[in-house]
Amino acid sequence: MNLKAKHIHISSGGALVAVLNSIDAAKMDIHTLDRIKLFRGRRVETVTANITESDALVPEGHIGVFEEVSRALKLRDGDRMTIILARKPLSLEFIRRKLDRQRLTKKEIDQIVWDIVHNKLSDVELTYFVAACYTNALSMRETVLLTKAIASQGEILRWKKKPILDKHCIGGIPGNRTTMVLVPLMAAAGYTIPKTSSRSITSAAGTADTMEALACVTFSNEEMKKIVQTTNGCIIWGGALNLAPADDKIIRVEKPLEIDAESQLLASIMAKKFSVSSTHILIDIPIGKDAKVKTSHEARHLRKHFEALGRMLGKRVKVIVTDGSQPIGNGVGPALEARDVLWLLRRDPRRPADLERKCLMMAAEMFRMVGVKNGMQRARELLDSGKAYRKMVEIIRAQFGHEIPPEDLRLGKFTADVLAKKSGTVRDIDNVVISRVARIAGAPLNKGSGLYLYRHMGGKVKKGEKLFTIYSESREKMRYALDVAREQESFYIW
Amino acid sequence: MNLKAKHIHISSGGALVAVLNSIDAAKMDIHTLDRIKLFRGRRVETVTANITESDALVPEGHIGVFEEVSRALKLRDGDRMTIILARKPLSLEFIRRKLDRQRLTKKEIDQIVWDIVHNKLSDVELTYFVAACYTNALSMRETVLLTKAIASQGEILRWKKKPILDKHCIGGIPGNRTTMVLVPLMAAAGYTIPKTSSRSITSAAGTADTMEALACVTFSNEEMKKIVQTTNGCIIWGGALNLAPADDKIIRVEKPLEIDAESQLLASIMAKKFSVSSTHILIDIPIGKDAKVKTSHEARHLRKHFEALGRMLGKRVKVIVTDGSQPIGNGVGPALEARDVLWLLRRDPRRPADLERKCLMMAAEMFRMVGVKNGMQRARELLDSGKAYRKMVEIIRAQFGHEIPPEDLRLGKFTADVLAKKSGTVRDIDNVVISRVARIAGAPLNKGSGLYLYRHMGGKVKKGEKLFTIYSESREKMRYALDVAREQESFYIW
Repeated sequence: MNLKAKHIHISSGGALVAVLNSIDAAKMDIHTLDRIKLFRGRRVETVTANITESDALVPEGHIGVFEEVSRALKLRDGDRMTIILARKPLSLEFIRRKLDRQRLTKKEIDQIVWDIVHNKLSDVELTYFVAACYTNALSMRETVLLTKAIASQGEILRWKKKPILDKHCIGGIPGNRTTMVLVPLMAAAGYTIPKTSSRSITSAAGTADTMEALACVTFSNEEMKKIVQTTNGCIIWGGALNLAPADDKIIRVEKPLEIDAESQLLASIMAKKFSVSSTHILIDIPIGKDAKVKTSHEARHLRKHFEALGRMLGKRVKVIVTDGSQPIGNGVGPALEARDVLWLLRRDPRRPADLERKCLMMAAEMFRMVGVKNGMQRARELLDSGKAYRKMVEIIRAQFGHEIPPEDLRLGKFTADVLAKKSGTVRDIDNVVISRVARIAGAPLNKGSGLYLYRHMGGKVKKGEKLFTIYSESREKMRYALDVAREQESFYIW
Repeated sequence: MNLKAKHIHISSGGALVAVLNSIDAAKMDIHTLDRIKLFRGRRVETVTANITESDALVPEGHIGVFEEVSRALKLRDGDRMTIILARKPLSLEFIRRKLDRQRLTKKEIDQIVWDIVHNKLSDVELTYFVAACYTNALSMRETVLLTKAIASQGEILRWKKKPILDKHCIGGIPGNRTTMVLVPLMAAAGYTIPKTSSRSITSAAGTADTMEALACVTFSNEEMKKIVQTTNGCIIWGGALNLAPADDKIIRVEKPLEIDAESQLLASIMAKKFSVSSTHILIDIPIGKDAKVKTSHEARHLRKHFEALGRMLGKRVKVIVTDGSQPIGNGVGPALEARDVLWLLRRDPRRPADLERKCLMMAAEMFRMVGVKNGMQRARELLDSGKAYRKMVEIIRAQFGHEIPPEDLRLGKFTADVLAKKSGTVRDIDNVVISRVARIAGAPLNKGSGLYLYRHMGGKVKKGEKLFTIYSESREKMRYALDVAREQESFYIW
């Protein structure tokens, strides 16, 4: 059948979806969620069919295309396409097999990941895969296969030198910008540490958002290589590199139920490490009631599996379990966190002590992994001598940024203080509320928005003293943020 | 936040979905798949948020509403609504619990089914529930709870008399219109048999489609009761009665993977029987390579569970396992099947012998369930005496139809014969191809479309003899149907 393309300006968020008028659908006996092949010149894509009875949306003789389909086939309104009924993707059978608790082979896992990367699976189908892996945990061998499949269906960076250091934090803690201290520190010590980081999804800033307050973070693989060749390190956004593209799509359907199949968490993280060819990987698991990992039992379990998976992939993996009960550092939001990092590297007295302690401990672990003793002392020397700071400036420049005094970082011009309602000791801080307030104030998109904390847990405070200051670049957002800060308790004092 | 409604003329197929402009979404820190509450006067609905960057689709200050939302809130373009971020539905936690292999309580199952019925779950979330029930089979107790929850969150019909007979076929076999023979037969014998049937989803006709070639099938609960009080029986479409509404929604997400969690199949069928308060239920499980149940092992397993579930629900359930390897009867498509049924009831020599044999056997089983011996003979008498036919005419009239000679049923005016390509014995018939050809010819929407078979398995045929005739009401559909009939083998002869 021949139909004319019509844009409907909706994004499915990933899956390829097209909408048929019910009359055309009936002619070809196509049902909702059936798969159809669209031929446009030499291009061809298999998409999931939706059906509408609204001639306003898709008139007879037309086919409504979601944005993903439009991009894939480079369509303009009115372009003619040939439509035929397609077979289901091969991987549906394998997903079903996993739901039936069978072990999957390399070929089957490769096919599933290929179909995910190429948007061949609908959300419902992808959800079955995630549910199957969650409830019928993958074996270690399957996890290795999944890790390699996710990595190898994206780009893989290769380096001439070894070792290649890397770190990863199993997130959820506001502040906590250890990467921006460890990368210049280890690079200053002569090690290669090509770090790719993520942007925030639900937090006030990802490392990539914070680094972006100081330099560019979006680079191609080739550009990244040049930066690392010059400076030993980089802090860039992983999203532009097409590393492990299946991963983001899997994470998307995990979100509604907040399930995190352990084997998928392992595969997701290790695939990204595999993609950048790191050899020594330090993994930080913060524990806290608002963190991804809530108990030390869970953390120990995860550590065992990370280390085993590392061995099977030929990587040295060391896992540390840390305190994730409250924000680390004082700034929350890109520029405010970047200021903490620069103060720390410049040995400014305003630097956050908790962030420094954590970074020194992690640096010591990294040194130990590559066989250097007295790592803690070496790390402190690299900081105190200014070598780590100078390396950071080098990296910032290599990433098209400028050296900037921390005080000159532009913060939101609207500010408001949130005060203690009573005197006492800070017994608890709600990370979720802290992140929400910072986000509503404009973080991470508005770099200067967020908040700055004056108190941490255990600190004493008097009624009327400042707990934190909110920064925002818009009066309206400040109003929303203040509303939330007033309605929702973030500091528990008694 | 206050936004103006804008219709976007798309149906999600169930879930309540609204689309925000990315600027408004950022102001409220709303992400794709978050839940938001929409207030419109006194009405309020919780919906899933999608986000667009296209001002063409949803400009800033507006909110795009899918058809389901528009209906639920009775919205017109430009209506002002208040939007707030909503909590997740309670049942997500319970679904997660089932994924974690825990047993669910009555309260939890009731909540899940309530959320399904009220469109509170997105497709992805509902899929997690289906996947959880599939891979971590429900216990018998959970299945009973699910059955009752599905039934009680719809209407329940009650009758003054007992027993109430019922039957169900676990589908997939073209033709096979036993209901349309058994209902008048058992009603003529004095039993109450208020049968609700489905329309076709992927077959050439459901019983409701076929009955619709003779009478109306869409009635309210009250109308149905009146029909049954007058005639003892009815053959109507279940879809208009709001019986077990959760069921259709569950079936929708099962389709892509063609999974059928056994516990959900059981709950789905028994919930509908519970809703019509039947006391004696005969279940037909045809086995065949194209049927829903493929092996006798599976069928036996299912039988055991049906009978156990029946006992726990206080119903008498009898399961028969039958041959589902080929079409039953000669007509495929509403009018063609209705003609077979009328021929059978009128004792016309052209009646299909296979359908008659099956109906007699099933009637005998039904008589045995209510304690009548010699059921086979009674059934034959009811047919031969014309009592069953007269009861059918009564039911047709009660359902606003007219007595019509079978020859006067309007069939598609375009016909084409499909001939045997060689001589031999018919070794196999592909039910899937038979259904597809009939559907593309126009069934079930065009009542007179479909096909009429001249041969069954084991029959001898000479090259050039007719295998079947296709009927269609449109030249174009006939062309498509013939294409498929020529390309795809339906009769295997050697």
